[in-house]
Amino acid sequence: MTTTGKQIFTTLASDGTLTVELAESTFPDPTGNQVLVRMEAAPINPSDLALLTGPADLENAEYSPGRLVARMPEPFASGAKGRHDQRLPVGNEGAGTVVATGDGEMAKALMGQRVACVPGTAFSEYAIAEAAMCLPLGDVSSEDGASAFVNPMTALGFVETAKAEGHKAIIHSAAASNLGQMLNRICQEDGMALINIVRKREQVELLKSQGAEHVVNSSDEDFMAQLRSAIDATDAYLGFDPIGGGKTVDHCFKAMEQVAASKMTEFSRYGSNQPKKMYIYGRLDLGPTVLTPSYGFGWTLSGWLLTPFLHQAGMETVMRMRQRVLANLTTTFASSYKRKVNLEEMLTKNAVLDYRAMKTGEKYLVVPNG
Amino acid sequence: MTTTGKQIFTTLASDGTLTVELAESTFPDPTGNQVLVRMEAAPINPSDLALLTGPADLENAEYSPGRLVARMPEPFASGAKGRHDQRLPVGNEGAGTVVATGDGEMAKALMGQRVACVPGTAFSEYAIAEAAMCLPLGDVSSEDGASAFVNPMTALGFVETAKAEGHKAIIHSAAASNLGQMLNRICQEDGMALINIVRKREQVELLKSQGAEHVVNSSDEDFMAQLRSAIDATDAYLGFDPIGGGKTVDHCFKAMEQVAASKMTEFSRYGSNQPKKMYIYGRLDLGPTVLTPSYGFGWTLSGWLLTPFLHQAGMETVMRMRQRVLANLTTTFASSYKRKVNLEEMLTKNAVLDYRAMKTGEKYLVVPNG
Repeated sequence: MTTTGKQIFTTLASDGTLTVELAESTFPDPTGNQVLVRMEAAPINPSDLALLTGPADLENAEYSPGRLVARMPEPFASGAKGRHDQRLPVGNEGAGTVVATGDGEMAKALMGQRVACVPGTAFSEYAIAEAAMCLPLGDVSSEDGASAFVNPMTALGFVETAKAEGHKAIIHSAAASNLGQMLNRICQEDGMALINIVRKREQVELLKSQGAEHVVNSSDEDFMAQLRSAIDATDAYLGFDPIGGGKTVDHCFKAMEQVAASKMTEFSRYGSNQPKKMYIYGRLDLGPTVLTPSYGFGWTLSGWLLTPFLHQAGMETVMRMRQRVLANLTTTFASSYKRKVNLEEMLTKNAVLDYRAMKTGEKYLVVPNG
Repeated sequence: MTTTGKQIFTTLASDGTLTVELAESTFPDPTGNQVLVRMEAAPINPSDLALLTGPADLENAEYSPGRLVARMPEPFASGAKGRHDQRLPVGNEGAGTVVATGDGEMAKALMGQRVACVPGTAFSEYAIAEAAMCLPLGDVSSEDGASAFVNPMTALGFVETAKAEGHKAIIHSAAASNLGQMLNRICQEDGMALINIVRKREQVELLKSQGAEHVVNSSDEDFMAQLRSAIDATDAYLGFDPIGGGKTVDHCFKAMEQVAASKMTEFSRYGSNQPKKMYIYGRLDLGPTVLTPSYGFGWTLSGWLLTPFLHQAGMETVMRMRQRVLANLTTTFASSYKRKVNLEEMLTKNAVLDYRAMKTGEKYLVVPNG
C-alpha cells in the first residue's frame, strides 16, 4: 500500500532558472523506526527559504497555479552548483498525525498520535520522519507544535553554548523575531542576561513588554552608547547574529572592546585581554560581513548551525532540551504567525513576496491539508 | 649606581600629534631576577611598528635629528585613546650583553653573558629584562640572536596550534616574510604540509628554492584554482594571515569550501560539514576584513597573538619551543635584514618610510650601540 499526495519541490537548473512547484508524489511505506505523518502545519523558516527560493528574482517571476519560475541572480546561481538540476523537497519541520509506521517499537508506539517532526520534506501532504526525532504532542494542536524544533532548539542552543563557554550574558541581534522572543523568555527563566538589538521603536516596546531588561535600538543615534552601556551592565562578550552581512558583528566587537578597554589600568598596543566572541547563525543580509581593525586580536567570529551543535552537545543534552521544549510548547516556546496558507497559496506571488521578505514577526505557517 | 643611555620613546597626544624621539634615560639597578642588558641588536617587527608609528602620516612629518613629529589620522588617533599623552618605550625583543643583575640566582648566572631578551624597551642602549625570558646565546652573535623570540615562537606557535587542533596542513599568507621562511623550514622538519600564498613571482621562486612544495601566487589569474588544487592535495583547512584587511581570509575560506563541497556526494543547503578555520595575526592591511556569504556556516575566524597563545600552551610547551629555537638559531630560525641602523638613523625620514612600508624581506635591524 503506497500513499500519494501533493508536495512542494524546488529545482535550480544550471542555467539559473529556479522552478518551485507543487507536484503529486508517492510516499513509500515507512520501515523500521520510520513513521508516515499526514502533515497539518509547517512554518516557513529562513533556513527553508534559503533552499526554497534563495535570492531568486521573485518580483519578475512567472506565476501559475502551483508553480513559479524565476531567475536566480549571480553569484548565487553558479555558487549553488551542488544543487543544479536536482528536484529537492523542502520544509525542515512541522507537525501532523502518524498514519502508518514501520515495525520498530519506537515507531509503532506513535501510531495515530499527533507529533512534531523534522522530516526535511514538511511542505507536503505527507512526510516520512524518524520516530526518534518526533515529539508526541498530546493535547497540543499541530499548529502550536509545528515550530517545536528549529527555533526552540536554536534558542536553547544559544544558552547552552553560552553556559558551556562560561558566559553569563548574551547579545542577540534582530531580537524581536519569533526566535528572539523565545530567547528572551529562556534567558529570563535561566538568569542569563540578554542584550536585545532591534531596529525599530515598536520592537523595543514589544520586547520590554515581555520583560526584557536590555533592548538597544540600532536606528537610534546613540546606538553605540546604548550598546556599550548594556555590555558594561551585563559583561556580555558573546553574541549571536542572524543578519550576517554588514556591520552588526563589527558593532558588537567594537562596543565589547571599548567597554573592556575602559576598564584597563595600563595601555596595551594589542588591546584588552578580554576574549570577545560572535556567532553568525543566519544570512538575513546576503552582503559581505565587514570587520574593521578596531578591536585588537582577542576576538573570534564563527558560524553557528543547529545540526553540528546538537551533534557536539551529545544525546543527553539534546534529550534534556527536547523535554524542556515539550513541557513548555505553548508558553516559553510558543511561536506566532502572520498568515496561514495551503500548499497552492504558498506559491502565489502575493504570499511568496511577503514571506521571502523575512520581516520580523511576519512568519507564515503552511497547512498542507488545509 | 645608576646607568644612563639613549632610548626611543613614542607619544601620541590627544590632539593626534605623534612624537617619536630619542631621549636620555636613567636605568634603575636590576633587582631580584632582573638583568640589565647593554643592547646590541633589535629587529623592527610589524608589532613594534604598530606602537612606534602606527598609520601616522610619515611622508609629511617634521624630521630633526633624533626626533620626528607626525599627524595620526582618524579613526586611529581617537581609537588609541588608551595611550594618549603617555611616553611609551618601544622594541619587543633584541640581544645584548648582561652588564648588571639582581641578586636572584637565575639573574646572577647570566652576568657577562650575551643573551636574547624580550624587554619591550629594546630600542635603547640599555634595557631591563627578566632572566627567565633570556636565552643565553653562547657563540651566537647578538645580530644573529636579536630575533630569537617573536618570529621563532610565532612560527612554532602556528605549528603547535595546528597540531593541537588536529590539522596536518597549514595555509600561510604573505609567506615570503622572515616569519614565512621560518615557518617553511619548521613545517618541512615536522612533516606539516604548508601552502604558501605570496604575491610575486620572485617570492614563488625564493620559497621553492627553500624546498617549499606548495606556493601559490595571488597575482596570477588562476590564483583560486592554484589554491584549490593545493588544498585538495594537502587537506589544509587551517590558515594564518598577517594581512588582516581585504579578502585574503575570504579567498582561503572560499577555496577550502569549494574543495570540501566537491567531495560531497549529496547536496546540502548549509554547505559542507568540513570545519574551516583562519587566524588573523597581523594587520599589514588596515582596511576592513571582508567575508562574503559563500562558504556556509562551518567556519571560524579568530585573532591570534603570541602572548595569549604562550599562556594557554603552558610552561612545558613553551620551554620545549625555546630549547628548539636556541639549538637552531642560525639555521631554522635565522632572520635576515635589509639594513642596519643606529638609534639616530632609525628616526630619519629615509629609514622610517622604508621600514614602515613593511615590504616582504626588507626588515631593519637596530644596533643601539652601533
